[in-house]
Amino acid sequence: MDFPKSLLGLVSNFSSLPGIGKKTAERLALHVYSNMSEEVIEDFAKNLVNVKKNLHHCKVCGNLTETELCPICGDDTRDSSQVMVVENIKDLFVIERLGVYQGVYHVLGGAIDFSNGIGVEDIDINGLIERVKSGSINELILACNATLEGETTSRYIKALLDEFDVKITRIAHGLPVGGDIAYADQTTVLKALEGRRKYE
Amino acid sequence: MDFPKSLLGLVSNFSSLPGIGKKTAERLALHVYSNMSEEVIEDFAKNLVNVKKNLHHCKVCGNLTETELCPICGDDTRDSSQVMVVENIKDLFVIERLGVYQGVYHVLGGAIDFSNGIGVEDIDINGLIERVKSGSINELILACNATLEGETTSRYIKALLDEFDVKITRIAHGLPVGGDIAYADQTTVLKALEGRRKYE
Repeated sequence: MDFPKSLLGLVSNFSSLPGIGKKTAERLALHVYSNMSEEVIEDFAKNLVNVKKNLHHCKVCGNLTETELCPICGDDTRDSSQVMVVENIKDLFVIERLGVYQGVYHVLGGAIDFSNGIGVEDIDINGLIERVKSGSINELILACNATLEGETTSRYIKALLDEFDVKITRIAHGLPVGGDIAYADQTTVLKALEGRRKYE
Repeated sequence: MDFPKSLLGLVSNFSSLPGIGKKTAERLALHVYSNMSEEVIEDFAKNLVNVKKNLHHCKVCGNLTETELCPICGDDTRDSSQVMVVENIKDLFVIERLGVYQGVYHVLGGAIDFSNGIGVEDIDINGLIERVKSGSINELILACNATLEGETTSRYIKALLDEFDVKITRIAHGLPVGGDIAYADQTTVLKALEGRRKYE
């Protein structure tokens, strides 16, 4: 005999999540049954569905938003002439939580990674070029991860945009080389942000 | 700015699960948005709600079931005179998956753990006594975890039931001492099951 069908379904849902194996999924499913109230479960189920229903990408920067423009692009007090280029949405939120950056963003949605078949057309570089072409951007801060893929992406963007009249900087290598922005401590990210320099 | 509200709700749901911290919860919530189809999410949400709606404890053994009696207690081909006492439902399923045990179970729902305030009245020992009193049980196999709590629980049950005409055995210490049944490999659990001996 195996787990009851109702439980097996949930185990399979949990184990489809990244980093969650079968035993952990079983533990989580049993936790839902044993330790969560019906109200909490209803809320969990509602939030799951709403994430897909309510969220979409900001048409300017690619950030996740519930409105047409994300709250950052729609905020008149932010400096829209300063654009920070990040690989992923979670990197954007790491920077935002520092509370010091006043510019706007451009979310690439990944990094160039030829070994995994991710080319320049798979990330939003075209959107970035269009924004630069519009002429209202003074500084582009490259904040890709300090990985081979992030470095490749930074180099590619730099080469593409060299002909435009825009200052291109890159956040400093205060980040441990090989690390992800999303997992660094705030001080390290802050140092990296402060130490950004002209990208040659 | 923080994550959009729709995402924050889901992050909080995920981080309420055991062993899942805030950063992992964020990664999971973003994974749901970015990598799951609406159909998969609907299925996930439905399964969450159904686990609580469809499942309850078997009134005889305490196993999780969608029917009044669990499939094991309701199976005439199982030997109802042989009862294996386990701490938790996941232990029951570890034994079931071996495919060799033909008796039935009694799920205590935990182990005596005075340091965490779990006493004899917090686990289903009374139900076990009633089953033994009914007189139809020949052998009681104690399969508590090889921990201090499991040992205490085994000793307590043995002392309580000594006056009854029932053979009390315990699965062998093939389990590494200090380990949980649910995380042992199948061979170890099988050896422990085969090596069970009269509990003195």
